Amino acid sequence: MDFIPRRELDFLLNDWLQVGELTRREAYTEHSVDTFTAVLDLAADLARDHFAPHYKTADANEPTFADGRVTLIPEISDALSAYADAGFFAGAFPESVGGLQLPYCVATAAFAHFCAANIATAAYPMLTGGNARLLLECANPAQIDAWAKPQIEGRYFGTMCLSEPHAGSSLADIRTRATPDGSDALGARYRVQGNKMWISGGDQEISENIVHLVLAKSPDAKGDQQPGIKGISLFAVPKWLPDGSRNDVAVAGLNHKMGYRGTVNCLLNFGEGDGAIGWRIGEIGDGLPNMFRMMNEARTMVGLGAATLAYRGYAQSLDYARNRPQGRTPDTARDPASPMTPIVEHADVKRMLMAQKAIAEGALALVLYSAKLVDEVKTAPSDSERVEAEQLLSLLTPITKSWPSEFGLVANEHAIQIHGGYGYTREYDVEQIYRDNRLNPIHEGTHGIQGMDLLGRKLLGDKGAALAILMARMQDTLNAARPHPELAGCAQSLVLALVQAQEAMAALSENAEPAALMDNASLALSAFGHIVVAWLWLDQAVAAMALPDENQAQRAAKLATCRYFCETELPKVAHPLQLVGSANDAASRVPSELF
Amino acid sequence: MDFIPRRELDFLLNDWLQVGELTRREAYTEHSVDTFTAVLDLAADLARDHFAPHYKTADANEPTFADGRVTLIPEISDALSAYADAGFFAGAFPESVGGLQLPYCVATAAFAHFCAANIATAAYPMLTGGNARLLLECANPAQIDAWAKPQIEGRYFGTMCLSEPHAGSSLADIRTRATPDGSDALGARYRVQGNKMWISGGDQEISENIVHLVLAKSPDAKGDQQPGIKGISLFAVPKWLPDGSRNDVAVAGLNHKMGYRGTVNCLLNFGEGDGAIGWRIGEIGDGLPNMFRMMNEARTMVGLGAATLAYRGYAQSLDYARNRPQGRTPDTARDPASPMTPIVEHADVKRMLMAQKAIAEGALALVLYSAKLVDEVKTAPSDSERVEAEQLLSLLTPITKSWPSEFGLVANEHAIQIHGGYGYTREYDVEQIYRDNRLNPIHEGTHGIQGMDLLGRKLLGDKGAALAILMARMQDTLNAARPHPELAGCAQSLVLALVQAQEAMAALSENAEPAALMDNASLALSAFGHIVVAWLWLDQAVAAMALPDENQAQRAAKLATCRYFCETELPKVAHPLQLVGSANDAASRVPSELF
Repeated sequence: MDFIPRRELDFLLNDWLQVGELTRREAYTEHSVDTFTAVLDLAADLARDHFAPHYKTADANEPTFADGRVTLIPEISDALSAYADAGFFAGAFPESVGGLQLPYCVATAAFAHFCAANIATAAYPMLTGGNARLLLECANPAQIDAWAKPQIEGRYFGTMCLSEPHAGSSLADIRTRATPDGSDALGARYRVQGNKMWISGGDQEISENIVHLVLAKSPDAKGDQQPGIKGISLFAVPKWLPDGSRNDVAVAGLNHKMGYRGTVNCLLNFGEGDGAIGWRIGEIGDGLPNMFRMMNEARTMVGLGAATLAYRGYAQSLDYARNRPQGRTPDTARDPASPMTPIVEHADVKRMLMAQKAIAEGALALVLYSAKLVDEVKTAPSDSERVEAEQLLSLLTPITKSWPSEFGLVANEHAIQIHGGYGYTREYDVEQIYRDNRLNPIHEGTHGIQGMDLLGRKLLGDKGAALAILMARMQDTLNAARPHPELAGCAQSLVLALVQAQEAMAALSENAEPAALMDNASLALSAFGHIVVAWLWLDQAVAAMALPDENQAQRAAKLATCRYFCETELPKVAHPLQLVGSANDAASRVPSELF
Repeated sequence: MDFIPRRELDFLLNDWLQVGELTRREAYTEHSVDTFTAVLDLAADLARDHFAPHYKTADANEPTFADGRVTLIPEISDALSAYADAGFFAGAFPESVGGLQLPYCVATAAFAHFCAANIATAAYPMLTGGNARLLLECANPAQIDAWAKPQIEGRYFGTMCLSEPHAGSSLADIRTRATPDGSDALGARYRVQGNKMWISGGDQEISENIVHLVLAKSPDAKGDQQPGIKGISLFAVPKWLPDGSRNDVAVAGLNHKMGYRGTVNCLLNFGEGDGAIGWRIGEIGDGLPNMFRMMNEARTMVGLGAATLAYRGYAQSLDYARNRPQGRTPDTARDPASPMTPIVEHADVKRMLMAQKAIAEGALALVLYSAKLVDEVKTAPSDSERVEAEQLLSLLTPITKSWPSEFGLVANEHAIQIHGGYGYTREYDVEQIYRDNRLNPIHEGTHGIQGMDLLGRKLLGDKGAALAILMARMQDTLNAARPHPELAGCAQSLVLALVQAQEAMAALSENAEPAALMDNASLALSAFGHIVVAWLWLDQAVAAMALPDENQAQRAAKLATCRYFCETELPKVAHPLQLVGSANDAASRVPSELF
């Protein structure tokens, strides 16, 4: 079973995002819609044959740590070898460094198959790709040769080391220190000492080497330690040093998680001995902004993972609902001798399926839209288009990370519920899908952190510049919807929600006390997410109107799902937006001792 | 740590429900508020000392089945021995059968401690109590002596056997058959054959015997098999027969669950050999209504379990939030050298704590209110009061089951989120609390089934008679709130929601096609639940206004939480009620082939 149907990816990439147009740009002239199709086919096959089969095995047999060695089940290694052999580590990287130079949105769509099949195994290439991309942007040529290229080949894997046991969201408070230790062919060398927490892929014996990208505090050029985030730089600390000796990086323990168990997660001790050897990547004091190149990509990939898990739960509960007879319809209820009906025909099950479909397809559309903005940033024909894409991507990133994570769990709840008691057992996949997905609102910046990013930096911080771009794109969609009377109701709902959002933002910025501005940031994040997804649903529906008649079922399904989202989900934003606009303090004013 | 603070139970029982007044009734004259207090103290001690310590142990070491024997960790047996020795199995049963004749609401409050400490271990006495109570109401004296009294002593445990692998919600379709086999001192005897699924406590070696209450189809007095539920009778099928021999009941396998793992859950085969011997309980054809005496109690207990897990998650995330420094407040954010602040001071964490507090205390209030209605049904001074209590209890039962189950999970999501990455690990309890609680919207009637019960039978079915009683009680609360200006805003919100609910019901019953009436029953269930809980919050706030000054912190906390619920939660009902009233078909009209 392919959890994400091919017809859905074809629709999103070709009919909606029209990725074929990208092949006219210089960066992608080597490609065609046919090569994109071949990549998607190969991804679907590999995901089905090498990633999906050990989904439950990896959950039931989590990584172990004994005698200094981390052991994973061999199926993970086998799957990643097949992934590397097929060239997927190289996907969106430039040819100049050994990549396939695929559009990022196409590589992302291909990666969706791997995430849906086995999110925990897919985490290794996800981190490795982000790590290599950061190095390409920030590292010197020797560092790129040493650590980026082997990751693009899939021989080395990468990690990101930000958090420490006492400092998760609060990166200004990290204690890891990097002390200058001369320089060599790889650049400025340091000795790194400290403890890093929540390191996914922090140790394993699958790859030849592991490239840890580590945030640490180090002195500036004058030898002074700057306070807070200004004093943080970024370091590459490989598990194996260039001379083949082992670096001073040790696993202190593994975290035992609710789900996502195939991804080993470590507490790492750097420099318990003489200090781990690390090389500075980029300039002194630029650690956090440089790391955020990887973090922003990771945030989009978190959204992708959550969207694909929503999709998988939808696909599996739909399959169950089609094949589970139970009860009768209102028409046959009076005759106990009549055969039971498949539960897919029950109104309440349809409701839970539609909710999942609207979330899963909406979230996937949101992620691919953001991924296409990455391509725009890289290849837009003009500076103004590039800047616009950058601003919009920056505005959407917290939403792309959080909305699928929040509502993907809602979808997974429905998937379990449709299975009834069976859904609560480990015989079926849906309880694991929920457990795996539960990580997504937490890692790479919690929902609360994303809310502050959206409301503080992206909406209030730039005086509405990015919001104006978003509004203009929504207006384009509304204009495109106008000729279609079937879409009038949805368009009207979107306009209403937009007005509510604008009123809330105006009221907030005019009336709220500065200290209370952020109190309801999480509500703003969820509400803006709903509006963005409703817009993309309307935009999908517009694209569906142009589908040929042989695809009329898909057209009808897209219209019905758009309608469902706009009628039953979108109006939920009115109340939280009102709380945001009025800076409601029903929670925040309660003194903590009253809890 | 007592997960449910004593001051909260004291407030709910004494200041709010005024259980002391029950001691003036003949059934409870032996008791006083002091004996109630002693029972609660003992429950808190036992729960802390014998139930809580093996919470994680039982999760990590689920029951096993080998060589025909089910094995549980010994801590479960030890805890239940202590529970039996303290007389808790006897709690609310009449003295005439060896009970302590406690008011049901007091016994329920005491049981809350056990559920919060270890929901899976508490399931055994929960089922045993319900089983014995059914027998007291429906069985003959010999059956009561044989099976009810040993359960009240805690020597035998009980189960409820309804579902079959192919028939969960659709009980009319069960295939288990009971064939007449003469009669003896215990009454009409049958041979029972069939497979029963999801049997909690279906086998174990803790109790001397297990009393299975089994639904099966059996011929009527004329020897005809009536179709559907009319052909179903109820049978007691003990694991051990009166002569000490083993009955023909075999474990076919265990279900391996997401959570609730300490409660062994079995597929049982009845009568693979000559047929299991069972004795009919009650009349032929009354199986389902008789079983529903136990089921309705079990539904209230599901609500209690969900409420207590919400409470536990709240208590543990509050404890974490008070002790985890991270980040800074808006006041100190500019100084990176200032100490980090405990996260309980962050607005977004306060929001998640208030949401949990409002749900946990609201759900517990709802369950105890329903439990007090059970006492009213048993001991009301007049017939009219008894009938009113019966009708209101019947109306509230689906809400008491479902609202804590649905929103308890929302609360648990917040509890995990507050813990950040730590909440996703099995080092902390909150991920298990969620997994345990996830069963509650499924078992003893899914959310969808409860929705149809509420909307179909309880709201539309009785032409509004029960709803009128509920409305009158809400009006009493609104009247009592009137002298308190602090409560005016909440009262106003409640009135608005009530109007919306009445309009929705009127529109639905007047305009909807009969086949579409139930399409949004689940939404109606959640929305009515919110309104009922808001009413009980306002009622709690009224009671809190009368607290003496030494309890002013509790008064302030109750007012703040009532305000939070009415401002941020209650207004959410407007939109779903509008969908209910308009019989919205955005999901139900979608042909199943379009999914």
